[in-house]
Parts: sequence; C-alpha cells; structure tokens
Amino acid sequence: GFAKVDHARAARQSVGEVIYGAGKTAEQIAAIAQALVEGGQPSVLATRLDAEKGRRAVRLMDAAGLPSEYDDVSRTLVAGASSAPVSDACAPLVVVACGGTSDLPVAEEAARTAAFLGDRVTRLYDVGVAGIHRLLASEDVLSQATVVIAIAGMEGALASVIGGLVSCPVIGVPTSVGYGASFGGVSALLSMLNSCASGVSVVNIDNGFGAAYLAHLICQVPTRRYEG
Amino acid sequence: GFAKVDHARAARQSVGEVIYGAGKTAEQIAAIAQALVEGGQPSVLATRLDAEKGRRAVRLMDAAGLPSEYDDVSRTLVAGASSAPVSDACAPLVVVACGGTSDLPVAEEAARTAAFLGDRVTRLYDVGVAGIHRLLASEDVLSQATVVIAIAGMEGALASVIGGLVSCPVIGVPTSVGYGASFGGVSALLSMLNSCASGVSVVNIDNGFGAAYLAHLICQVPTRRYEG
Amino acid sequence: GFAKVDHARAARQSVGEVIYGAGKTAEQIAAIAQALVEGGQPSVLATRLDAEKGRRAVRLMDAAGLPSEYDDVSRTLVAGASSAPVSDACAPLVVVACGGTSDLPVAEEAARTAAFLGDRVTRLYDVGVAGIHRLLASEDVLSQATVVIAIAGMEGALASVIGGLVSCPVIGVPTSVGYGASFGGVSALLSMLNSCASGVSVVNIDNGFGAAYLAHLICQVPTRRYEG
Amino acid sequence: GFAKVDHARAARQSVGEVIYGAGKTAEQIAAIAQALVEGGQPSVLATRLDAEKGRRAVRLMDAAGLPSEYDDVSRTLVAGASSAPVSDACAPLVVVACGGTSDLPVAEEAARTAAFLGDRVTRLYDVGVAGIHRLLASEDVLSQATVVIAIAGMEGALASVIGGLVSCPVIGVPTSVGYGASFGGVSALLSMLNSCASGVSVVNIDNGFGAAYLAHLICQVPTRRYEG
Amino acid sequence: GFAKVDHARAARQSVGEVIYGAGKTAEQIAAIAQALVEGGQPSVLATRLDAEKGRRAVRLMDAAGLPSEYDDVSRTLVAGASSAPVSDACAPLVVVACGGTSDLPVAEEAARTAAFLGDRVTRLYDVGVAGIHRLLASEDVLSQATVVIAIAGMEGALASVIGGLVSCPVIGVPTSVGYGASFGGVSALLSMLNSCASGVSVVNIDNGFGAAYLAHLICQVPTRRYEG
Amino acid sequence: GFAKVDHARAARQSVGEVIYGAGKTAEQIAAIAQALVEGGQPSVLATRLDAEKGRRAVRLMDAAGLPSEYDDVSRTLVAGASSAPVSDACAPLVVVACGGTSDLPVAEEAARTAAFLGDRVTRLYDVGVAGIHRLLASEDVLSQATVVIAIAGMEGALASVIGGLVSCPVIGVPTSVGYGASFGGVSALLSMLNSCASGVSVVNIDNGFGAAYLAHLICQVPTRRYEG
Amino acid sequence: GFAKVDHARAARQSVGEVIYGAGKTAEQIAAIAQALVEGGQPSVLATRLDAEKGRRAVRLMDAAGLPSEYDDVSRTLVAGASSAPVSDACAPLVVVACGGTSDLPVAEEAARTAAFLGDRVTRLYDVGVAGIHRLLASEDVLSQATVVIAIAGMEGALASVIGGLVSCPVIGVPTSVGYGASFGGVSALLSMLNSCASGVSVVNIDNGFGAAYLAHLICQVPTRRYEG
Amino acid sequence: GFAKVDHARAARQSVGEVIYGAGKTAEQIAAIAQALVEGGQPSVLATRLDAEKGRRAVRLMDAAGLPSEYDDVSRTLVAGASSAPVSDACAPLVVVACGGTSDLPVAEEAARTAAFLGDRVTRLYDVGVAGIHRLLASEDVLSQATVVIAIAGMEGALASVIGGLVSCPVIGVPTSVGYGASFGGVSALLSMLNSCASGVSVVNIDNGFGAAYLAHLICQVPTRRYEG
Ligand SMILES: Nc1ncnc2c1ncn2[C@@H]1O[C@H](COP(=O)(O)O)[C@@H](O)[C@H]1O
Ligand SMILES: Nc1ncnc2c1ncn2[C@@H]1O[C@H](COP(=O)(O)O)[C@@H](O)[C@H]1O
Ligand SMILES: Nc1ncnc2c1ncn2[C@@H]1O[C@H](COP(=O)(O)O)[C@@H](O)[C@H]1O
Ligand SMILES: Nc1ncnc2c1ncn2[C@@H]1O[C@H](COP(=O)(O)O)[C@@H](O)[C@H]1O
Ligand SMILES: [Mg+2]
Ligand SMILES: [Mg+2]
Ligand SMILES: [Mg+2]
Ligand SMILES: [Mg+2]
Ligand SMILES: [Mg+2]
Ligand SMILES: [Mg+2]
Ligand SMILES: [Mg+2]
Ligand SMILES: [Mg+2]
Repeated sequence: GFAKVDHARAARQSVGEVIYGAGKTAEQIAAIAQALVEGGQPSVLATRLDAEKGRRAVRLMDAAGLPSEYDDVSRTLVAGASSAPVSDACAPLVVVACGGTSDLPVAEEAARTAAFLGDRVTRLYDVGVAGIHRLLASEDVLSQATVVIAIAGMEGALASVIGGLVSCPVIGVPTSVGYGASFGGVSALLSMLNSCASGVSVVNIDNGFGAAYLAHLICQVPTRRYEG
Repeated sequence: GFAKVDHARAARQSVGEVIYGAGKTAEQIAAIAQALVEGGQPSVLATRLDAEKGRRAVRLMDAAGLPSEYDDVSRTLVAGASSAPVSDACAPLVVVACGGTSDLPVAEEAARTAAFLGDRVTRLYDVGVAGIHRLLASEDVLSQATVVIAIAGMEGALASVIGGLVSCPVIGVPTSVGYGASFGGVSALLSMLNSCASGVSVVNIDNGFGAAYLAHLICQVPTRRYEG
Repeated sequence: GFAKVDHARAARQSVGEVIYGAGKTAEQIAAIAQALVEGGQPSVLATRLDAEKGRRAVRLMDAAGLPSEYDDVSRTLVAGASSAPVSDACAPLVVVACGGTSDLPVAEEAARTAAFLGDRVTRLYDVGVAGIHRLLASEDVLSQATVVIAIAGMEGALASVIGGLVSCPVIGVPTSVGYGASFGGVSALLSMLNSCASGVSVVNIDNGFGAAYLAHLICQVPTRRYEG
Repeated sequence: GFAKVDHARAARQSVGEVIYGAGKTAEQIAAIAQALVEGGQPSVLATRLDAEKGRRAVRLMDAAGLPSEYDDVSRTLVAGASSAPVSDACAPLVVVACGGTSDLPVAEEAARTAAFLGDRVTRLYDVGVAGIHRLLASEDVLSQATVVIAIAGMEGALASVIGGLVSCPVIGVPTSVGYGASFGGVSALLSMLNSCASGVSVVNIDNGFGAAYLAHLICQVPTRRYEG
Repeated sequence: GFAKVDHARAARQSVGEVIYGAGKTAEQIAAIAQALVEGGQPSVLATRLDAEKGRRAVRLMDAAGLPSEYDDVSRTLVAGASSAPVSDACAPLVVVACGGTSDLPVAEEAARTAAFLGDRVTRLYDVGVAGIHRLLASEDVLSQATVVIAIAGMEGALASVIGGLVSCPVIGVPTSVGYGASFGGVSALLSMLNSCASGVSVVNIDNGFGAAYLAHLICQVPTRRYEG
Repeated sequence: GFAKVDHARAARQSVGEVIYGAGKTAEQIAAIAQALVEGGQPSVLATRLDAEKGRRAVRLMDAAGLPSEYDDVSRTLVAGASSAPVSDACAPLVVVACGGTSDLPVAEEAARTAAFLGDRVTRLYDVGVAGIHRLLASEDVLSQATVVIAIAGMEGALASVIGGLVSCPVIGVPTSVGYGASFGGVSALLSMLNSCASGVSVVNIDNGFGAAYLAHLICQVPTRRYEG
Repeated sequence: GFAKVDHARAARQSVGEVIYGAGKTAEQIAAIAQALVEGGQPSVLATRLDAEKGRRAVRLMDAAGLPSEYDDVSRTLVAGASSAPVSDACAPLVVVACGGTSDLPVAEEAARTAAFLGDRVTRLYDVGVAGIHRLLASEDVLSQATVVIAIAGMEGALASVIGGLVSCPVIGVPTSVGYGASFGGVSALLSMLNSCASGVSVVNIDNGFGAAYLAHLICQVPTRRYEG
Repeated sequence: GFAKVDHARAARQSVGEVIYGAGKTAEQIAAIAQALVEGGQPSVLATRLDAEKGRRAVRLMDAAGLPSEYDDVSRTLVAGASSAPVSDACAPLVVVACGGTSDLPVAEEAARTAAFLGDRVTRLYDVGVAGIHRLLASEDVLSQATVVIAIAGMEGALASVIGGLVSCPVIGVPTSVGYGASFGGVSALLSMLNSCASGVSVVNIDNGFGAAYLAHLICQVPTRRYEG
C-alpha cells in the first residue's frame, strides 16, 4: 500500500482522516476511502481533486458499492453516509465569509469541510470591503458566530475588518486570487498577519480545509470541557 | 489627547483595552492607563516597553497614585489591581510552550497577557524539537490544554510537532530569534504556515500578545455559549 | 554650490521647489532656503529633518534674518511667510485619513505639505479599520473630499475601505509602522496595490510629501482647465 | 445568481459597474451584462477576456439581442450602445503613453476603458526612454493632458521621465513585460514607486483598467466641483 | 559531440560520472551512457528523466545492446550491470527518511543513487513530524545509521527532529512539495538551514541525488582513511 | 535556573554541550560553564560573545576559580582545560578554507570549534577564487582533508571550486560579508546551494560553529564504525 | 504599421536595429525585417523565436524573396546577407565562455549576435568551475580576448573565476538554468553582481544578446578612437 | 601579516592593488599601503574609510613619512605620489554621471578611482531624469565619452536614458539612496538590469570603485591592441 492509514489519529484527535487528493490518482483515493470506511469511519472527505479526477473516483467507488458525491466548485468529494446539515440553533456556528466570486473555491472547501466535520455553517459571500455596507448589513449573523473564517485574496482586508466587528476568534485564509503584486496570495497573507484587529490568526494560502479543521477544534472546546 | 480611548470596545469584544507601548512615551502610556482606570477598567496592561520606558511609567503612575508593576523579561506593565493566578483546576487552560531561552521575551509576553485576561496558564519552556524527549515528557500537560501557544524561532518546528500531539487548537508564534537565514522570523513563520499538522494557525512574528488574546477568545467559547 | 537650484521647475510645474532634507546638513538646508527665497519664492518647505537638524536650521536662518518654524511630529520646516489655513469652503478639499497614532508623522507630513501648497485640509485621524464604526461616522467629511490621502501601516486596509466609500481619487500611503511580517511597510504597500476598490493609487512607503504633492495637482485640475 | 449586481455603486461612485472577466465563464459574463443593461446601464464593459471567451460572449449576447464588440488586443468587450469618441477639444484629456509594442495590451485596456467612461483619449505609443527623442517630440501633446497614464515594463522609467516633463498627475502602470530580473513586473513597479519626479502614483502591475478608472475620477474633479 | 565525457573525474573523485537528464534528449542520454560504459564504467546512472524520455532511452540502449532499467517514481535510469543490494551488516548505512507520500520521488532518487554508488540503504518513509510517534518507533534504525538523509517539504521539520535524535551527520533535502506559502520548497529550505539541532546540513531543493552523493563520500571516510 | 543543562546530550551525541552566547549575559554564561564543568565536562566552549561580554565572563570565571580564554577574532571563549593541538598525522583532518580577511571571524569560529572538539585542523586562508592560483597551489593540503569547510561571502564560489578539486565532503559556510546585492549572505548561500560540484552541502550564514560540529561528526565516522 | 522602424538609431549608435522576437508574430517579424532591408540595412538579426515561429518566418521571407536562416539552439534568425566569420587575427576578439550544455542556448545567442555584428568570436564551452582544470587549460585563449562573455547558471561562479584570470572586461550573463534555489537565475545573478574579482559587470538573466551588443561596443573603442 | 600582498596581480591585470578599507583598521591600511609603496607601486588607493578611520590613517602614514590625502565625500584615501589630471584631449574619456546630491559619495568614489587609474574624467552631476532637459543639454559631453558611468538610486532610470543617447558602453551603478520601496538599492539595480537600451551593464549597489575599474579596462582596449 502507498500509505499507512492512521486510524489511531481519529481517536487521538477527535476527527476522522481526510484525504489530501493533490498528489494522488483517482485509484489511490478510491482505495484509501474504501479502507477507511471498512475501518469504521462512516464517511470520508477528500480535498483538492480536479473535476476529471473527482468524477473518475466517484465512478470507481460506485463500482465498488461505496456511494459518493463530488462538488466541482470546492473540488471536494465525500464518500459514504452524507451528513445532514445541523439544524440545532444552539450548536456552535462556523461563519464562512468571503469577498468575491473568485474566492468561492476556497470558501466552499472550508464550508464543506466544516459541514463534513459536523459543524453548523452559515455562508456570508460577496461581502468584500470595497462595498463595506454589505458586510455591515450582516453584523447580526457575525455576532452569532462561534468562529468566523474570513477568506480573501488581493488586499485581504476582510479579516481585519471582521476582526474589529466580532468578539470571537477569526481565522484568516488568504487566497491566491489576484494578479501582479498579489504574488499568488502573499499580499493577502501579509495583510492578515499584520491585522490591526486582535483575535485574528492565519492559515496557509488557499487552505480552506485547514481553517475549517481548526474552526471545528474551536467549536469542540465546550464539548471537551463540559461533556467530555 | 493623542488617542480617543475606545471604552466601547471592551463591551463589544469582552476584554479591556491594552496599550501598545512601542511608539508611545512613558508620559502618554501613564496618561492612557490613568484614563482607562478612571473609565472603570480595573487594571490595564501595556506591552512593548523597554526597561527605561517601563520604569519611568511606573514612577509616573506611582506619583499619580496608581500602583503598577513592570516586568523586564516580557517588557510588559500592569497598572491597577493585579490579578491572582487562576486556581480553579476546571478553568480553561492556556499552555505556553517554547523552545529556548531566547524565546522567553515573547513567551512571557504571551503568558502574562493570558494571566492578565484572567486565564489559567501553564508554562512549558525549554522543550525545543532538537531534544524531542523533553517535549514528549510533557504530553500529560499538553493533553489538558484548552489551547496551546507554541512559540519558536529559527526553524519553528515546535508548532507542527505539538500540533501532531494534541487535539486542541494550536496558535503558532514565530519569533525573530536566530541569525542568517532565519531572516528575522520569516523562516519560523513559513514553517508554521506550512504545518503538516492540522489545527495550527499563526499570528505575526513576536506577537505573544496577539496569541494570548486569541487564546483567551477560544477559552471564552464555552462561557459565551453556555453561560452568556 | 552643492545643487543647481531649479527655479524653472516652479514655472513648469506650478509649485515651488521643496527641500528633501534627509541627506543634507542644516547648513545646506538653510543656504538652499535662503537662495530660493531670494530667488522670489515666498516660502520654502523642507521635509525629513530630525529634531536636532531642524532646530539647528531654524537657528541658522534666524541668524540670517529668515523667519522659520520646525514641527517635530512631521519633521518638516517652513521658512518665510507662513500660509494661513484656507477658509473658503468651496476650495478643493484634501482629506488626510490615518488609522493610529503611529502613523501620525507621515500623516502630518502630508497635511502640512498640502497646507504649504495652499490646499484646504481636513484631518481624519484614528479611523483604523479595526474599529470601522469610527470611519463610517465620518462619511460626510469623506463625501466632501476632492481627494483623500489614506495613510496606513500594518495591513494597510484603510485605502481599500475608503476607496469603496468615496467616488473621488484616493492616494494610498503605506507606512513603515509595524513589526515582524509588516516588513517595513511592504505588507501595507502590497495591500494598497491590490486594492479591490477602484480609484486607488499608491505612492512610496512613508511618502506623505509625495501624496500631498499629487493631491495638489489633482486639486489644480479645475484651475488649470477653467481658469488658466 | 453568482453575484449580487451592485446597481447602487453607479449612483454612489458616478460610473457604471465593469465586469472583471478573468475568473468568469462567457455565460456568466453575458448574463451579468444583460442584467446590467436591463437595470438601466446603457453600455457595459468587460475586461480580461481571452479571444475564445470574448467571441463566445459576443455570440451569446447576439443571440439574446444585445449588440457587443470584442477587441483582442485589449481583451475587452463592450456590450450595448458604443460610445462615440469625444470631439470637444475642451474636454479633459487622458493621454495614454507606452514604450513598446509589448505593452499594447495594457495600454489598450487603459485607452478603451477611458473611452468607455466617456473621456477624451490621446494615445502616445512607442515613446520608450531608450529613444528619448520620440518622447520629447510629443511634449505639446503631454502639456495638454489633464492626466497621463504612463505604461511601461522592464525598467519602467517612462513614468519618471514623463513626471518630470508635465505638471499634471501621472498614473504609472507597470507591466509584466520582460524576462529574467523583470520578475513579472516587479522591476517596473519598484521604479515607479521610487520615481524621483513628484506627482506620480502607481496602480497594480498590468492594471490598465484601474489606471483609466482613476484617470476618469481625476477628470471629473471640475465637474463635481463646478457643475455638480 | 555535445559534452566532453570526464573519465578523469572518476579517478579524482572515487565515483563514476552520473548523467543529469533534465536538459538532454533520450538520444543524447543513450549516447553518453554508451560512451561511459565503453570507457570502462560498469554501470551508469541517469537522473531527472520523465517517463517518456526514460522509456525512449531504454529502447535506444536496448537496440544498441546495452541493458538498462527505468524507475518512474524516482525518474532515474540505470544502464549496464545492476548492483545487488549490500548485504554486509557491517557496511556503512545510509538511512533515507521522509514524511509523506508526496516526497517519494525525491526520496527514491536519493535511495537509488545511494544503492547505485554501492551503499547499504534503509528506507524510513511516512515518518512525518505531525505523527511523531511513528518516527520515535524507528529510533533503533536511526541509531545504526552512518548518515541520515532527511527529506521533507512543507515545514521541513523532519531534519531538525532527526538531528536531535541521532549523533551522526544528517543531510537535509527540502522538497518542493506543498502549496501557498511553501514557495516551491523555500519554507522547508529555510527550516533546515535554521535547524536548532547541530550536525545538520542542507542541499538544494529536491536534490535527492546530491544528498546521496554526499552521503556516499561520508560513508567512504573510513575506507579512505584505513584502507586507501 | 534559566536553562536545564542537558548532560544527557553529551552521552547521546558524543560531544559536550556548547554555549550559544548571543542572547545571554556574561553572568549566565559563566554560571552555565561552571555547572557543566562541575557536571564533569572537562572544558566548555562558548560562541558569539562580543569583546566586552567575553572579557567580563573571563573575569567572572576567574573569580570563581575556573580558568578560561577569550579570542576576539572568533568571539569564542574556552573555559576549563585547554586542548593541545592534535599532532597525530594520521588523525582525521579538517581543512578550514576562506577567501579574504573579512571572513576571518567565521573561519576562526570554525577552526577553534574543531580544535575544541579534538580534531586536527589546517587553516587555508586568503585563497579566494579571484586569484585561483593561490587555491590551486594548495591542492596537496586539500587532498589530505577528511572534510573541508569552505567559507566565503560575496559570490560564495569557493565552495564550488573546492568541491570540484576534492573527493571528500565539503561543508559550505556562506558569510554575511559584502554589501549591496550580497544581502547579508544570501548571495553566497544561494551560490553554495546551487553548487555545480557534487559533495557540497551548506549550513546557515556565518555558522562556523555548525560547520565544525558537522565536520567533527564526519571525522568520527571511522571511530564509531571500527572502534566504537 | 505596428512599430515605427528607427533607422536613425543605426546612425546614432553604430549598429543596426535588431528584432526582439518574443512578443511578435512570424508575420510581424518578416515584415519588419523586409522594411529594414529595404531601408538599407544589409542584414537583420531576430532573437527569441521558438522553432515554429522561426521556421514560419523563414518561409514567409522566402516567399518574399528575402533569404534567411534560423538556428534552433540560439533561437535566432538572420535575414539578408550572411556575414562571413572574421579571419583577421588582429581583429578584436570576443570570447564566449560557458559551463555546461544547458547554457548553450544563451551562449549561442551571444556568439551569433557577436558574429552578426561583425566581431571575431571564439567559443569556450564546457569550462564550468566544478572542473576548474578545463578552464585553466584555456588560459591562452582567454589572454587574447578583448572582452570575455562569461555565461553561467546555478552558482554563477564562472564570471568571478574568469575575472580573476584575465585583465580585460568580463561581461557576466546569468542563466535561468537550474532548479530549486537557483530561482530562475537569481542565484547566478547575485553571484556575478558580488564578484570578488574586479572588471566584471552583469546583464539581465539569459540576455546573451545584450552581452554581445555590449561586447561589440567595447571592441569598437579603438575604431571610434583611432579610426573614426 | 594579515594579508599576502599580491604584487603579481598588478603585472597580470595592468593596474595596481587597491585597498578595500571597510573591514580593516587604520593601522592595517597604513601598513598595507606602506608595503605596496615599498614594493614599487608609486601610489595606493584605499576605499570605504569613514572620516575617523581616514584621518587616523593619514596621520599614521604621515608619521611614517608617506604623504597621503583623504577625501570625505568619496571616503577614499590616496597615498604616495598624487596623479595630475589628464590633460591630453585625445585620451580616452570616462564620463561620470549622476542624478542628485545623495549619489555624490558613490559618484566621487568612481571619479577618484578613475583619476587614480590614470584616466581622463568628466563629471556630469545633477542630471537626474526628473529634469531631463539638464541631461539633454549635456549631449555633447556624452558623445565624446569612451565609456559612461551612470550612477543613480531610487528608480535608477538614468542608465537607460543615457544608454539610449550614446553609442559607447554604459556602466550602471545602482545606489542605496532612497527609502521605502527602494529597498537599499534593489529598485535601481533591477531597473538597470532591465534597461531597454542596449549597451548597458551593471555592477553591485554603491560599487563606484568597481565601475571605474571596469571603465579603465575598457579605456585600455586600444592600448592593449595597438600599443601593447
Ligand atoms: N486541502 C488540504 N490542505 C491541507 N491539508 C489537507 C487538505 N486535505 C487534507 N489534508 C490533510 O492531509 C492529511 C492526509 O494526507 P494524505 O495522507 O497525504 O492524504 C489529512 O489528515 C489532513 O490533515
Ligand atoms: N504587543 C502587541 N502586539 C500587537 N498588538 C498589540 C500589542 N499590544 C497591544 N496591542 C493592540 O494594540 C491596541 C492598542 O493600540 P494603541 O491604541 O496604539 O495603544 C490594543 O487594543 C491591542 O489590540
Ligand atoms: N481589469 C481589471 N483589473 C482590476 N479590476 C477590474 C478590472 N476589470 C474590472 N475590475 C473591477 O472589478 C469589479 C467587478 O468585479 P466582479 O464583480 O468580480 O466582476 C468592477 O467594479 C471593477 O472595479
Ligand atoms: N570599494 C570597493 N568595492 C569593491 N571592491 C573593492 C573596493 N575597493 C577595493 N576593492 C577590491 O578589493 C581588492 C582588495 O581587497 P582587500 O585585499 O580585502 O583589501 C582590490 O584589489 C580591489 O579589487
Ligand atoms: Mg475581534
Ligand atoms: Mg493536532
Ligand atoms: Mg471609490
Ligand atoms: Mg511632474
Ligand atoms: Mg544530532
Ligand atoms: Mg568533490
Ligand atoms: Mg580581471
Ligand atoms: Mg546606447
């Protein structure tokens, strides 16, 4: 086998293994998913699959009797039981905010990962700082967030502005959207690292998955403390 | 006055104003602290004061009847009522970990900020990855953390290694410790942003304050959810 | 003489020669100022003089019968007739906005340069994006601007946010304020270059003078068109 | 719908919405254009469409009864009523200058955007500084400009040289033309930011659109002041 | 001919010429290999051949009567006599360690080069620092190493952690694996250069060959000293 | 105490603890040295002490009865028994080569560290590549080396040229010597990482200590293999 | 027409116009060449044409009765009368030196440009510094040079080493050959800029043409002085 | 002694040894100068001495009977016979051009080095591109140059503009003059490397000495060819 599947990590870290699809073939992804499901994980998420690879993986798992769904905006695939959206209005809430249509792939990677991990998710798209009034109109949603994932390319100001509006943790995700002096996300990354608002931290450029994973750990804080 | 003091932020964001001392004179710092205490904030933290400025500010506040204490490792000053360490063993726990003695100023800025904000703090110093056994010997402390602040300069590997050991959020603080190709903290910053362990996010180089502030917001998640 | 004074430029470019004080001695600055005033320029501005050099230059000119004033926030000096503030409420308006107290030296360099050039100036300080409500409370001032100079260090988001609020040109001035990943103003510079709001352009880091000079040229557009 | 069309911005900012075509499909662009025209905008500009996407969008709008034209040098498309060139010799003038044939796509993006916004435009191409005499031969055109857009790749000196010749605002647009140490436009960008001539500001690399938009706001200064 | 084959280097430097396949055609590679074998070198290694070039070179040499084998993980080709694995348990040992499946091409380039040079090789794959327990479980293998090649992308912490565990030389090989702020291997490179563990040195990004070559020279130290 | 002294590392890694003096006071250095000597280490090396700190530490240890010597070229201090130079002509040989007088501090840090660790050392100074004949005149010395430490600033070519001349491992140490585009050692660092000669690896800029430590481990290879 | 052909430059600068083919179509190149030949230039050089464009341009000119030749190593094309190699052993001599086969495209661009400009050219290929003896064996050729063009990628040491051997000007051309930390030629560029040998200057990465053009101007110095 | 004085280089390279004063004490500089003069070199140049070191060296040599002169603009010192300016109007001519007063130290280092080497020198200062007419007014001087040294900081356009005006070699010297995005000379360096004018090459930032040395070699071309 190409990779020792780490069942123990699930126990140790409270969430199941997620497949990073970038350097793997559809065949490898299907096989790992199968192994994880057989190992007891009810459903499996794979990220970073382009459309061709995603569709091929779906067909392969289908042939092997494992239902799966591929989403081509977020380039993610979920195999096994699909999780129903969380309806409990008291559940911790992950708000995923982004500025423009070009940030959608990263935003959807974050939102679908959060949903996969069992979190309640609200999307707040098209709230870029160039039209600040749209963001301000959403202050009520923001105020209910347990954690906000702020996704932005170009000048990356969204994380700072949201950081100033809310009193919960903000996870900034710089995106590689832009051209010229955006330098593949570096401009947004530096912006977010220098946020003049406190309570903001940053993950790697385009790392929607990582932001959602961290958001999940933050949402788990009460559970771990009061319930487990 | 040189700065409109933002009393509202305390209400809006659940923690009091903290003074960023870097570009201010001892006179300005003393005056802002006085204003904040008179405005009802029981105690005030100021960060980034070198020894001379810190001592001068203490003398000035003393003359004005406001007790204060300056710590020259962390270069922070606390004016007003000093907070007793949290003794409740069920309170959320911030673990502050760092590798070497050169990271102490940043680690202490984080630890003292967390204490100031009312959080329970455990220090885990001198656990650099070059002697991994010392870190592993502390796995029990790490496992009780609500959030870990991992502080490291040079190659910054500490955040990744801790991220692989714990299932709570890890906040990486790169430090400017090092020389040559450490580029004033850039090497550690990139390391932490590229952490192969999920659940790790990063704040600005040397930003111990920001990490503790964020840690506090994460510790507040249960309170906001269940109690408030 | 150390520099051929370019009287012709004043004619060619509509504003007088300004002395860049950074690499020059107090003696050189005083001598150039004298020569310009004798050449017919009613008053002379010098920028980038630290306190010691500024005071020495004032004394030297004083001794030579040329009145002058040094301002130590902006580190500028004006020799000769000082210009009264513009009171005509119909005159073009330069709004100088900045986020925090650390940006004051650059903001004042811009504001004083604009005043020296004869423009009407309104200062809008302490309106950083981490507390966006303070900026929004100033929308009426912004809406009257002929041009806005947006000055910010760290994440530099102020230029984008203002760019989205106004329909006049915005000149961004990144400042070297910050630490760590602010890289001496690079973070703010990149932010502003990538502004998602149209109508924003950028000058060099800390170049308050250049922004005010450009603002002046923009304010002159009607004069040049309708009057001369 | 994929994006909330912001009709209000036109009112707030005096110019209509422009479609940034880079991350959008021909179908999306056609649909947005249609919606904007139906919303009352007489004509719509879309930028950054490669030839294939541009032609497809033209066909789609044609089928829907909306006339449009695609230009493959500037990679822009105009849908709806095409604007006649401004013939009034007193109208504000945007001079678009560039050095070589490789800068043409950016120069034409600027020139066509300015024309779309209703400005009078004069093109001054092939006036690179390596043959300075060609530029000097155009001093009369330059002297009539309300604003100059100086477009250059490689060493980007054009903006400085023009800045020294004129007394109106100069907007520098660095282009990604070049190889090796031009670093995709960084060399030209730094040159322009460091211009030793005052009155020069800079927009993002290859951002011909942004320069023209800003030029338009500058041309509007008299209108806003004297007429509106 | 396209290159003067340097037979003398073998004598001067104790190992045979290796072909760097990146900029050469299959025809050139086959011809150089043939010339080297005819010149007396029993077998020849070529690196950096993509699958197509590798297969074509094999066919060409086959046609010319020179047996060869291409491996498509490491993208290397060995022509001539293939070397049997070293079975002598007292022979110097090169341990090749890497973190994840994405580092395999570089790891295999190193491992196969070491084997080609006649060294005993043990592979320690999938021991990334995010799951430090897997690495610690291999301490006995590590303790027998004469030299360790530590291969890692992203945050590159593996070299430091191994450097702290062993008392033999560690050669770090940063890989270009990762995205965003990994900057094509720069993050891992800086990490390794700043290793807080002594005894670690670094070769170029993705340079598995160079690491194995150096490892071989280190393994030869006793031979050169005691035997030759 | 400020640092848990790691006696175990000596056992685990075959060499004693060395004190990195950069961030420590003379008092701290003297105390750590004392503790190590009392713990059984016959002598202690401290690096990166400027002249003032070095002399103060010597005085402090003197007062405490611990003999020590400070060298102000290398900025190192040795406390305890000083090691006699190795006279055995069969002992492994570390050749320390550098180009110019400006590289001496780093070269001497390397040479003195190697001597401290018990290795035989030959210095080959003033052999920069701009006068290649001086280097070639030393080929006999180079040919006897077990390992060469090649130290160079500016263009850093020395490591490559030596790498082509010898068949033993070469450790490159880039130095921060130079100005302008040497960027504090980055130019030399990149040169060495890209060495076209195989067998060359690199440590951090100015890290003479690290190079000598690694050289020592390489010299130990026969001992560990044949004797221990 | 797409470009005003600058016949005057030939007069002003002593060499004819050369076509930079990178951003132009075969049709444009053929038309410009035709215009230049009709304008009196006996032959025309075009650089940076890939094989397809080069062959197409040859066919187009052929059809128009203009003979031409395309060389696919240097990616250059010469139209019109081809120049015979210079046989006069007293003519100024341009020596073109490079290290490896990967540098050939740049080296041949330089050599063919020099020949086109009428200079005597000697090629010294495969003399990289990793095998310094091959370079030293060519000292007699080097000593006859009027100017040396030193072409190298990776660590770029060739320029420094040659600079130390000769007493004529050396023009360094860094190439983008390499991988990883060669950063597309930046490593070689920095090396050459920091050359510890005096008499070395540098042109842009991969700019073989520019080096040959400059070499020609240097070779012309006696002619301009004594003859013209 | 601290450095083997290389008398042979003078013979090999036609110019005498020059002392690089940056890392040396006044005592070392005086001693080397003495040794060179005793070795037969009529006069000696030392560069990069700050005022204090320069004056001290003059006093030391004075005491030893060696006359010398220190110039504090260029920070150079000449010991021994001072060379009279070249009066022969047919001698090769080095034109040293620079833009502003801040570039004077580098310009004077170049001009004095050229004079020391025996070349005829014309200074063309204060001809920056922001006032292009001053440069154009000097076209006759430029047209007589054998070689031009173009010195500029900030945007560094001077080299390109001069390169377009003359048909002799142009040596660009970027200076570290500027602030913000000039990045210590990087902006000017990149500008010059990307010069759109052919015939321009570049030396290291602030390297006036290196430019003059190269200029001298170019001036020697006729001598070496026709006379020696
Ligand atoms: N889009 C993503 N970005 C970063 N890390 C990811 C992503 N998707 C999955 N991962 C991580 O990659 C690990 C699996 O890696 P692998 O074994 O290579 O499939 C998971 O445990 C996740 O922590
Ligand atoms: N060490 C620090 N690093 C970054 N931000 C800080 C630091 N200390 C205080 N701050 C922030 O700076 C704000 C106060 O800034 P100021 O008004 O300039 O004193 C506080 O509200 C904190 O959010
Ligand atoms: N070429 C361009 N470069 C930068 N910004 C552009 C460009 N074209 C259009 N825009 C901006 O992009 C906005 C529309 O973005 P979108 O909603 O993504 O189509 C417009 O309002 C313009 O401000
Ligand atoms: N300002 C300078 N910049 C660069 N190289 C210089 C300079 N001055 C002297 N040199 C060179 O440095 C060599 C002497 O170096 P050193 O032996 O260290 O004094 C001379 O032969 C010159 O080639
Ligand atoms: Mg907040
Ligand atoms: Mg974890
Ligand atoms: Mg706007
Ligand atoms: Mg101007
Ligand atoms: Mg070790
Ligand atoms: Mg070798
Ligand atoms: Mg030379
Ligand atoms: Mg020229």
